[in-house]
Amino acid sequence: MTGQLPFPVEPWCVRETALDLDRLAQSESVLALSNGHIGLRGNLDEGEPHGIAGTYLNSFYERRPLPYAEGGYGYPESGQTVVNVTDGKIIRLLVDDAPFDVRYGTLHHHERRLDLRDGVLTRDADWTSPAGKRVRVRSRRLVSFTQRAVAAIEYQVQAVDAAVRVIVQSELITNEEQSTTSVDPRVAAALENPLEAVEHVVGTHSALLVHRTRVSKQLMAAGMEHVVTGGEGVVVESDGEPCWARTNVTGVLQPGATLTVVKTMAYGWSSIRSVPSLRDQVAAALIGARRTGFAGLLREQQEYLREFWDNADVVIDGDAQLQQAIRFGLFHVLQSGARAERRAIPAKGLTGPGYDGHTFWDTEGFVLPVLTYTQPQAAADALRWRHSTLWLARERAQALGLRGAAFPWRTIRGQECSGYWPAGTAAFHVNADIADAVLRYRMVTGDDTLDRECGVELLVETARLWDSLGHFDRRGVWHLPGVTGPDEYSALADDNIFTNLMAARNLRGAADAVARHPDLADRLGVTDQEALSWRTAAAAVHLPYDTELDVHEQSAGFTGHPEWAFTDDPAQYPLLLSAPYFELYRRQVVKQADLVLAMHWCGDAFTPAQKARNLDYYERRTVRDSSLSAGTQAVLTAEVGHLELAHRYAREAATVDLLDLHHNSRDGLHMASLASAWTAIVSGFGGLRDHGGVLSFDPALPAGIDQLSFAVRWQGRSLRVTVTSTQATYALHDEDPRPLTLVHAGAGLEVATDQPRTVALRKRVAALPTPDQPPGRRPGDGQ
Amino acid sequence: MTGQLPFPVEPWCVRETALDLDRLAQSESVLALSNGHIGLRGNLDEGEPHGIAGTYLNSFYERRPLPYAEGGYGYPESGQTVVNVTDGKIIRLLVDDAPFDVRYGTLHHHERRLDLRDGVLTRDADWTSPAGKRVRVRSRRLVSFTQRAVAAIEYQVQAVDAAVRVIVQSELITNEEQSTTSVDPRVAAALENPLEAVEHVVGTHSALLVHRTRVSKQLMAAGMEHVVTGGEGVVVESDGEPCWARTNVTGVLQPGATLTVVKTMAYGWSSIRSVPSLRDQVAAALIGARRTGFAGLLREQQEYLREFWDNADVVIDGDAQLQQAIRFGLFHVLQSGARAERRAIPAKGLTGPGYDGHTFWDTEGFVLPVLTYTQPQAAADALRWRHSTLWLARERAQALGLRGAAFPWRTIRGQECSGYWPAGTAAFHVNADIADAVLRYRMVTGDDTLDRECGVELLVETARLWDSLGHFDRRGVWHLPGVTGPDEYSALADDNIFTNLMAARNLRGAADAVARHPDLADRLGVTDQEALSWRTAAAAVHLPYDTELDVHEQSAGFTGHPEWAFTDDPAQYPLLLSAPYFELYRRQVVKQADLVLAMHWCGDAFTPAQKARNLDYYERRTVRDSSLSAGTQAVLTAEVGHLELAHRYAREAATVDLLDLHHNSRDGLHMASLASAWTAIVSGFGGLRDHGGVLSFDPALPAGIDQLSFAVRWQGRSLRVTVTSTQATYALHDEDPRPLTLVHAGAGLEVATDQPRTVALRKRVAALPTPDQPPGRRPGDGQ
Repeated sequence: MTGQLPFPVEPWCVRETALDLDRLAQSESVLALSNGHIGLRGNLDEGEPHGIAGTYLNSFYERRPLPYAEGGYGYPESGQTVVNVTDGKIIRLLVDDAPFDVRYGTLHHHERRLDLRDGVLTRDADWTSPAGKRVRVRSRRLVSFTQRAVAAIEYQVQAVDAAVRVIVQSELITNEEQSTTSVDPRVAAALENPLEAVEHVVGTHSALLVHRTRVSKQLMAAGMEHVVTGGEGVVVESDGEPCWARTNVTGVLQPGATLTVVKTMAYGWSSIRSVPSLRDQVAAALIGARRTGFAGLLREQQEYLREFWDNADVVIDGDAQLQQAIRFGLFHVLQSGARAERRAIPAKGLTGPGYDGHTFWDTEGFVLPVLTYTQPQAAADALRWRHSTLWLARERAQALGLRGAAFPWRTIRGQECSGYWPAGTAAFHVNADIADAVLRYRMVTGDDTLDRECGVELLVETARLWDSLGHFDRRGVWHLPGVTGPDEYSALADDNIFTNLMAARNLRGAADAVARHPDLADRLGVTDQEALSWRTAAAAVHLPYDTELDVHEQSAGFTGHPEWAFTDDPAQYPLLLSAPYFELYRRQVVKQADLVLAMHWCGDAFTPAQKARNLDYYERRTVRDSSLSAGTQAVLTAEVGHLELAHRYAREAATVDLLDLHHNSRDGLHMASLASAWTAIVSGFGGLRDHGGVLSFDPALPAGIDQLSFAVRWQGRSLRVTVTSTQATYALHDEDPRPLTLVHAGAGLEVATDQPRTVALRKRVAALPTPDQPPGRRPGDGQ
Repeated sequence: MTGQLPFPVEPWCVRETALDLDRLAQSESVLALSNGHIGLRGNLDEGEPHGIAGTYLNSFYERRPLPYAEGGYGYPESGQTVVNVTDGKIIRLLVDDAPFDVRYGTLHHHERRLDLRDGVLTRDADWTSPAGKRVRVRSRRLVSFTQRAVAAIEYQVQAVDAAVRVIVQSELITNEEQSTTSVDPRVAAALENPLEAVEHVVGTHSALLVHRTRVSKQLMAAGMEHVVTGGEGVVVESDGEPCWARTNVTGVLQPGATLTVVKTMAYGWSSIRSVPSLRDQVAAALIGARRTGFAGLLREQQEYLREFWDNADVVIDGDAQLQQAIRFGLFHVLQSGARAERRAIPAKGLTGPGYDGHTFWDTEGFVLPVLTYTQPQAAADALRWRHSTLWLARERAQALGLRGAAFPWRTIRGQECSGYWPAGTAAFHVNADIADAVLRYRMVTGDDTLDRECGVELLVETARLWDSLGHFDRRGVWHLPGVTGPDEYSALADDNIFTNLMAARNLRGAADAVARHPDLADRLGVTDQEALSWRTAAAAVHLPYDTELDVHEQSAGFTGHPEWAFTDDPAQYPLLLSAPYFELYRRQVVKQADLVLAMHWCGDAFTPAQKARNLDYYERRTVRDSSLSAGTQAVLTAEVGHLELAHRYAREAATVDLLDLHHNSRDGLHMASLASAWTAIVSGFGGLRDHGGVLSFDPALPAGIDQLSFAVRWQGRSLRVTVTSTQATYALHDEDPRPLTLVHAGAGLEVATDQPRTVALRKRVAALPTPDQPPGRRPGDGQ
């Protein structure tokens, strides 16, 4: 992308300074608000124009059939698609008799501003109607972090230079007309009018609609309530039908006078509860929010975020764009998981309909590491959600002829929704990624309660899956044949190193867990022999190595495959749009970090020399057609000493959506990439590792960053690390009197509260020259 | 299958002696008539009851969308499905006022008899109506081998013991109601009423309907004409509508008197010609058939078949069931290809709707070898059909980023219709199979004209495909990564030996062909360097070998994969209905001969000791869930000396449909299996091989066969081989004065016309004990 940046670089906010209707859908994703339960895309108050209108409730979905040209045993028959629920964001305005619509009249000024410390989206418009009447509109919108069912909008309209008659229509709209986002007619068919009316209640200042999905029979309710101030002769009245409701505020504004409408919305859904109980729950949320008031909601929001930033903020001196992007990413990661509370964290959060609203391994693999180190209770809740779907994963494993639990590649509710098994079901590593998140949670927090509650069961059931997936060869070496690793340009390969290492960790982790919890072992029927078999397999895991090239093979045989015939044409990316899987799978072309990811997550399985050589080899073959790559490449290029390259990767991961690098931010934000930007900084330049339960750092900054500061939680402690080009300072900010031992640059270091330790950095020397990427894929070149 | 055989064992016919409505669909397939252009399932004359009503015209299809839960680049968007065209077989009978329907009244006697020498299906029924009126009905039905557009039925009804009023209604019915044969609602939707009316013409004794497919816009016409004799006061009149026509023959029959209606049908279709031209073509065919008369059509049919059997009959003494089955199979293979004339030969011939009427590699791989040795002009025509689709195969290769031509895995018209690419597009060996059929045609017939006409171009374009699919490793060894071989329980493997050997043959064959035809090389742009590169690749082809187990690997890594956990449950087969592809692909379980097929077709690439060991290894892992396996296993088990096991396999291949061994003969016959039964006998017990262009035999009979006689064409000669337990006699039956040199049991042998040579057999000694098959899969056990 060239030319002007869409959002000016500022440290604490994302500001849209002009309205570009062609980029509206991207802005709607970037400016989306969510608390993990409710998601509101950044649609304009008046509803249109819009790119994609979107209001989502976490895990509220509709079923749709999954069709196959040629079916097969074990193919999922139905998929799940996130529903655009009743839209409560809409506030229309009539100025005299002209509807406020930015496509007509004159828009003198437009600005929207997402404040990352306030958690509020502010919009300012200065508009003259086609009939010459000028108004200023300001709206402030929030989705409350503290009152999970509540969102609110303060809508203000001011007459500028003449008296105007205004009508503000605040609405609830169900089954909004949507521009089709897929060429597949079945997707559109399934989601046209997904909601059928159940009940509607209209008061004077309020309304409430209850609907149900046609097929999955999930019930939802949306309510709104209004407080109106200002204006002359103001009349408030409401009307409604089963699929819409409207509160009309009519009045006259003298020049300079302002009418303020505060709209409080509440949402709820359930697949099991009754209509009255859901209706009353939403009504109660409205009452609660009314007591708090808009100012109160604002205050709570700021307090919530202040605490978050205290524990999570990353300060980057010298790269203002990365500074903005990293905070933007952290804010959205928080939004996606903060109040998800035993619901999934989708790949796009609740910012758009991309990937049908599904959750992938992105959650455990990329989002939870960040949450575990910054907002651990949200990570625990996400794992509780996984556990709540364990029964479905057990059923799936059984259907596949496997033991234990096979978690889905993609899902909303827990059922496998992948319609292409070589890149779905066969990517069993999702199970090890879940187990890894369980292990990390305990390691980082020091908290054993999640293990007792559900973690051990997750570890045991995934270990059982690996036990049934693997086999010992004639020499007693343990293999995992025919699986798909992270790289989606390979599939169904033997001994994918990432999967093998992660499975081994899963097996060892489960064995350790049952040793710690003999009572749980009993309850789960784990015998000593079973646990021993897990350790035996883990100890014998095979890691294919090409002794001629002296590099690891991503999977058995990989380095013997033909190379990809790269051209200079930048339009070749993403390759999957112009090449068949057949060719992608059989060649040495890598969509996203796979062996390189193994060298991050399982870095203790590789020597520094291997890391340097492997990275050099795979860098030249990795095209990053997935957004799940740049952050990991940042970590490893930093580790082996290519700090400037790491900086580029970190920027790519962080700005994926602000710069729309994958040209699909319109469908929602890339939550894993945003999360991985934090990891790129903290594990890349901070050198954070936690292998073997040891918190270690080995910081080094690229030339473009003068100083870096980040915070992590570790076993209840709050540690802030500040890095300059020559030294690092470790400071504890908590009440715990005990010293904390960590590792800095390979040596132990004790830190105590209020006694920061400043130490010199270890010089990072690259063993090999900085590697090239495939033509056109040098990070940053396309920006 | 236990209990009574459905069809009594007789040498020259297949007779159904009782009407089992539960097995009706199987009988309809077994008793189907075809000449390769028109196919009539063995439906009862009166149309119902039926299992699957079926009337097919070769290559007449309808398009339907191919849906994907998750699409991908290069996935075919539309499929092709054979259409059940206007049904002209229907002749209804009213006896007084009761419709003749075997489900009502009393059926005293029922017999249908498919005569393999006459090419006629005769049906006898002796029936008393619910009102007590008894009639005898005899119909004789044929699809003419000599008049390609014509089929005919002689329908006779005789009053038995009382005078009856009869009405014979002879019909054309379009868009017959069909019982759904698929659980997929889209299939049914696409094929409900596929034909739209274009024109209908009704005369007194005749009618003609013209229709068009709704989407593919193919035009078809069906006509009928009647000659009526016998009866009293007979009146003939016809009526019709756009989608049906009816000739009503009304009369009275005194006891013993017979009414005879001869119905002649004609069919034509075109995707390019006009309605008048197609209508007139069908009318002309009716006129031609009228001049010949029913007796004349019968006579022509017998003469055609006499010549076929003279050149093709296999005589087996000592195994009457195999004798019947092998002739039944040959008859259907002939029917499928005799007059296909540059149309495809579908996997089911024209006997049923199975596999959507698609053609696979079955044609070149299994059917053409038989036709090449017995009816070579039909083989040439089938290859001309492939060549007529070359332009589509070129387009497909280009879309896939490959050079040359990529023929479809499954198709009717030539476009790829496979909706699951790992078992479709990736099975590129179909291209080498086509090339092999081209090479064999020239070798067996000695005829170079097909090569000049189209064969060389087929060889060159398929060689170019392999050249672009393969690659040389660092040591100069040539590999084919990521392809799928014949075994459909494996996919996307590196260096499938069958594919590698066949590709090498393709490359060498193309290089040889352009060397023979420098003018064609010029026209096709083949430089010396290109041809040399083909030879270089072929000479360097990799064949993975497990040196520890001392067996070849079906594909790289195969013998290191986990074994399948077989159980004793016979209901586990076919495995694909109860196990996911994921598990099938990653384990050492083989659906059908793959390495064993390589050892047959490319037998000169293996030593006898390798063959014995490989066979032993793969026998224990091959479940024969495909019907494309038993015939090949017969050939190889015979070669390595397990003659009794070979006998069982030959019987399985031959009786696949007569005994309904795969429980799906209802959808059509397994043409490749029927053809492979001939190969099992001729190459298994006759030991026929043609490696390097040398015709060789090495006969040996199992204990259960006393004498075997078969005939082959070789370079214009007609050779009959007769084998007993101790000796073989080679006899030439043609006018050519030159002696023919062949190889018997490893030594040269000269044979001249009318000078048969009798020589002793070589004793065949098995190097290893007879291997077991997986539990429940010993051939013959299930029968």
